[in-house]
Amino acid sequence: MKLASLKSGRDGNLVVVSRDLTQAVEVPDIAATLQEVMDDWTSVAPQLETVSISLEQGAVDEAFPFDPSECAAPLPRAYQWADASSYVTHVELIRKARSVELPESYWTEPLMYQGGSDGFIGSRDDIVVLDEAWGIDFEGEIAIITGDVFMGADEGAAGAAIRLIMLANDVSLRNLVPAELAKGFGFYQSKPATGFSPVAVTPNELEPAWREGRVHLPLVCHLNDVPFGAPEAGDDMVFGFPRLIQHAARTRNLCAGTIIGSGTVANADRSRGSCCIAERRMIETLDEGEPKTSFLKNGDRVRIEMLNRHGRSIFGAIDQTVVVTKGEGR
Amino acid sequence: MKLASLKSGRDGNLVVVSRDLTQAVEVPDIAATLQEVMDDWTSVAPQLETVSISLEQGAVDEAFPFDPSECAAPLPRAYQWADASSYVTHVELIRKARSVELPESYWTEPLMYQGGSDGFIGSRDDIVVLDEAWGIDFEGEIAIITGDVFMGADEGAAGAAIRLIMLANDVSLRNLVPAELAKGFGFYQSKPATGFSPVAVTPNELEPAWREGRVHLPLVCHLNDVPFGAPEAGDDMVFGFPRLIQHAARTRNLCAGTIIGSGTVANADRSRGSCCIAERRMIETLDEGEPKTSFLKNGDRVRIEMLNRHGRSIFGAIDQTVVVTKGEGR
Repeated sequence: MKLASLKSGRDGNLVVVSRDLTQAVEVPDIAATLQEVMDDWTSVAPQLETVSISLEQGAVDEAFPFDPSECAAPLPRAYQWADASSYVTHVELIRKARSVELPESYWTEPLMYQGGSDGFIGSRDDIVVLDEAWGIDFEGEIAIITGDVFMGADEGAAGAAIRLIMLANDVSLRNLVPAELAKGFGFYQSKPATGFSPVAVTPNELEPAWREGRVHLPLVCHLNDVPFGAPEAGDDMVFGFPRLIQHAARTRNLCAGTIIGSGTVANADRSRGSCCIAERRMIETLDEGEPKTSFLKNGDRVRIEMLNRHGRSIFGAIDQTVVVTKGEGR
Repeated sequence: MKLASLKSGRDGNLVVVSRDLTQAVEVPDIAATLQEVMDDWTSVAPQLETVSISLEQGAVDEAFPFDPSECAAPLPRAYQWADASSYVTHVELIRKARSVELPESYWTEPLMYQGGSDGFIGSRDDIVVLDEAWGIDFEGEIAIITGDVFMGADEGAAGAAIRLIMLANDVSLRNLVPAELAKGFGFYQSKPATGFSPVAVTPNELEPAWREGRVHLPLVCHLNDVPFGAPEAGDDMVFGFPRLIQHAARTRNLCAGTIIGSGTVANADRSRGSCCIAERRMIETLDEGEPKTSFLKNGDRVRIEMLNRHGRSIFGAIDQTVVVTKGEGR
């Protein structure tokens, strides 16, 4: 099934969305918000599945046209957003760009940071930034939402807790990163609000592309309607989602509704392009001596989407415009 | 007023607590959870204040004895927990212990990391850890809860958004820190679930000790009933809470219910003792050549409390016992 949150209040109104993303229906008698679903998945999800089946059959009178521009992020705010860097190829290039050596452990142990989860932007919301000089970048990623995971869970239990899958735009302020990482406490100001695809889907919606804890489809990124990259998300993902969840749960429980990100999708095969500007700039530096592509400017549009093997959008598109404003954020 | 959350479900049951921490009353007609209060502070807080005044007058029939052991953290889970290191003296000592130099910027710009907020432990809950060898430590801190803060807010707007104050035990796994920080993405596994005091209080409950965005009272820490330290929280706090909030909101909005921590309270005057073991170990190393105090072991008890000038507990005590278990977390 496919789920989305129409903009309403702080947590949105939960809707079940048809497989082809054309129809939706509110389900107030089952659950008002997606967090409510996550909190009580075992009893609520089967009821939503029933609605989903009826919707596919055209048997839901209350169905209305689905409009992604009316969507908040599937979880408009969440209790946890932990983002990994599973495509180590990407990290290696980014490190090269910063002239920092890649520790050997990066290939054997997941790299993960705690992201801000108190406010996400919807798939069609503007990326509002106060200063273009901060080096605005997009990062196309896959993200999953978990049920409850107990501290010390093994990879099997971790994998069994994967409830929903979505796409993410992990917006990054590249020029704030070096100073922030030099202080040793990880990212904070360099990671503004993350964006997510309009819908989150259960893993079965991806079959047979969902296997080994990875999504085996290209993640298609456009910048101002020009193709930017379409790497295969199933290739070069060193750590699958079960391993990432296990890493996150090593010393603490994870609450239902925890979002775990893959990190920027990237392939060793450079012909597939990139899912962020920083990676392309590094490749340009290596190939041409200096970066040619600038970071995002006011008015630039980023589109991140994943199509199934029949060319149909699975999650709906992230399609966001950068708005640089010197005022306050909202 | 003073607010707490009795354990119930994932988000607790909100109660108003009397100033002397002896009586409490549920307020289901006003708000069910503290997050609901934060989400709608302007209209809800005055109603809670009215209940608080009646409670002080002994005029609430439904009042019952308040038992901190029945409390979850005031926010049992939150959308954001961002912890600073405002007592730079502490950071300086910890860095010395790790033989890492302190950047000059630490004195002029707040240091802050994004903490896990999806599950906190209550003031009397056990600190459950799977391996004693991880180097279990407590960190006594002050924390505030904000209302909504807009991106780019100045220090004045940031300070005006401070709604509630509480104490925190930022449990840390010291032996996991060096490897994690070396990977460059900040803390993750080295910061298990944080604990908070039983009640959160409005700033006026602290007057005249609340001024300049700081709490001017000693934070009293005991280890196994032996005094460990009682530094003045108002001294040596290089950045007050308004500055910390401003820092957090530089590139993104902060959602109501955001928790911001002071970092381990520490004074330059060493006679006041420490609020974490790591700091004492560093002082021992400097004074005696090696650390004498071991990190927390199974069964060790940590107590963190703040008394007003009349010797009465303001927030109730954090009083937690370490439980090392090889099984799963819960």
